Amino acid sequence: MNPHKQASTTDPALPQLPQTLRWNNGQFFLLDQTRLPLETVEERQDSVEQVWESIKQLKVRGAPALGIAGAYGLVVAMQEQQTLATADYLKELQRQADYLDSSRPTAVNLHWALQRMLQKAEALAKESAGTIHQALTEEALAIHKEDRALCRGIGEAGLSLISEGSGVLTHCNAGSLATSELGTATSPMYLAHAQGTRFRVYADETRPLLQGARLTSWELQQSGIDVTLICDNMAATTMAQGLIDLVIVGADRVVANGDAANKIGTLGVAILAKHFDIPFYVACPYSTIDFNTLSGDEIIIEERDANEVTNFGAKPTAPDAMQVLNPAFDVTPAELVSGLITERGILRPPYTESLRQHYA
Amino acid sequence: MNPHKQASTTDPALPQLPQTLRWNNGQFFLLDQTRLPLETVEERQDSVEQVWESIKQLKVRGAPALGIAGAYGLVVAMQEQQTLATADYLKELQRQADYLDSSRPTAVNLHWALQRMLQKAEALAKESAGTIHQALTEEALAIHKEDRALCRGIGEAGLSLISEGSGVLTHCNAGSLATSELGTATSPMYLAHAQGTRFRVYADETRPLLQGARLTSWELQQSGIDVTLICDNMAATTMAQGLIDLVIVGADRVVANGDAANKIGTLGVAILAKHFDIPFYVACPYSTIDFNTLSGDEIIIEERDANEVTNFGAKPTAPDAMQVLNPAFDVTPAELVSGLITERGILRPPYTESLRQHYA
Repeated sequence: MNPHKQASTTDPALPQLPQTLRWNNGQFFLLDQTRLPLETVEERQDSVEQVWESIKQLKVRGAPALGIAGAYGLVVAMQEQQTLATADYLKELQRQADYLDSSRPTAVNLHWALQRMLQKAEALAKESAGTIHQALTEEALAIHKEDRALCRGIGEAGLSLISEGSGVLTHCNAGSLATSELGTATSPMYLAHAQGTRFRVYADETRPLLQGARLTSWELQQSGIDVTLICDNMAATTMAQGLIDLVIVGADRVVANGDAANKIGTLGVAILAKHFDIPFYVACPYSTIDFNTLSGDEIIIEERDANEVTNFGAKPTAPDAMQVLNPAFDVTPAELVSGLITERGILRPPYTESLRQHYA
Repeated sequence: MNPHKQASTTDPALPQLPQTLRWNNGQFFLLDQTRLPLETVEERQDSVEQVWESIKQLKVRGAPALGIAGAYGLVVAMQEQQTLATADYLKELQRQADYLDSSRPTAVNLHWALQRMLQKAEALAKESAGTIHQALTEEALAIHKEDRALCRGIGEAGLSLISEGSGVLTHCNAGSLATSELGTATSPMYLAHAQGTRFRVYADETRPLLQGARLTSWELQQSGIDVTLICDNMAATTMAQGLIDLVIVGADRVVANGDAANKIGTLGVAILAKHFDIPFYVACPYSTIDFNTLSGDEIIIEERDANEVTNFGAKPTAPDAMQVLNPAFDVTPAELVSGLITERGILRPPYTESLRQHYA
């Protein structure tokens, strides 16, 4: 039996969910997302170099999943160093954390998880390397467990939004594959499905990298949820036909006024939803909220490689030397967001107040 | 020298434009659009079966181009029949027209051009097959020439919309490759470029079949127009950044109240344009206007093969047995259309009146 196809161990009522990351008897396993949906292959991560490559090559992606992968990766890195003197262990730990952090420099959660691991170790600087290592293993498991709980909380907060017969549109993958278990945007869907609610999800394919076609479609289909794949440019007519009752997306970052940065295309979906009077929700755990940035205008939009737009896989689909825009994400202004689904409930506008109230 | 790279013969001031269809010394040539943009290959059409296959395989596409291809195809079909008795020639002509019509049953212009050719022949039923054949050749050339003039008229009507420094967004390919020469949506662009106006075009890639990436990008780039390719889901952020001053798209059909059916994704662009207060224009010759249909609600939307969405070329990009929506086009309601750019000028709302006034 394929381990990633096992039913969730934390809640027997939940549908079968992919195990994006798994720690088992001191060994770290990753589902290789670059091979989805054609192949479902779990890879044991035997070295820190392998973890670094897995992150670099997007075998694991999604902000929360990257944090967990970094934490487990650090344990893998230090596995053979437990007999070192504590000072040497800590020095090596710092070096390996820096190395892992370099695999995706812009991933906030990866950096955050590695820092948390380092702080844990420093607090135990009077203990033996073996004791520290044991504590780090437990810390990685705790990070994983906490993420699972955050996702669960988001699901419970958003559950009431999905009714019998609902049509739910989502964009990109803010699902199980981007997190530890239930995902963020998908969490209300998985919980509603577990309760027997029948509804349909429409998944935007999400060009250029097709996370919707490759990942969201796959994980929802695997779990038995009724999911229909559409091209990004079909969202408008799908809404016009009355097929969509609500939109739920994830977020890379929600800033102090409620503006939300998320995968390119999210802004367009939000504008369409407003036009058709369809509620548009952003699912986000507290770790996504950035109080240091006051408005979405301050967010610098990363421009990615033109090849992602001009090629499909290895096949060129545009003329040579084509000028291209390829922003990785866009910013949806708070006034287009009907609510933020968080582990502390659904926050409503004005977000400057509701965010401060719940997370001050 | 590649014949399709020759400058237009009708206006030396125009940029180099591809010759989508070409009739030369009794021979019919087509630019194979399925091989664009990687290869530019012109194919001589030596038999009616070859023309049928070229239409079927989308080597030639675009409503006006299909009409012209049908007319030339019928001449090719009858080339060797000129020594028949007139009655036999006419019988065979009908058979070949029916055959060509079956290559794309939903293409209104193909059917229209074939009917026009048949009527021409019937009007000459007292003449010899040779005389009829000569008249049919001239009729095909006339259809081609008229389309060229229609496109030119649309360009002249829309020219004033494009100013120095304008950013113009277009969707799909309503260009030279879909017509005889200047295209419909692209015609104002080609004329503005010929006048030395500097502006930038943003071309939506237009999933699933990528006519924007493969065709519009290519023909504008070839002509020296500053063109930037974006994924469909990047239009919103491009507008939010102030890069777009107007949108011009083509249409498959404009009905009596001004509702416009066009390639899937057009409706979404129109809604985004409205949100950002950007004028949204539909370019259409009279042949696109359907007075028999009163409103867009009556238009039946063709659903195309799921493989177009779940595969990219031959490569699957979604899970097996994936449910898919794949509407070929959508309907943009008249209230989102700032103007109809026609060969008789720019029509303004209310379209029920302005269309009747200009085309009654």
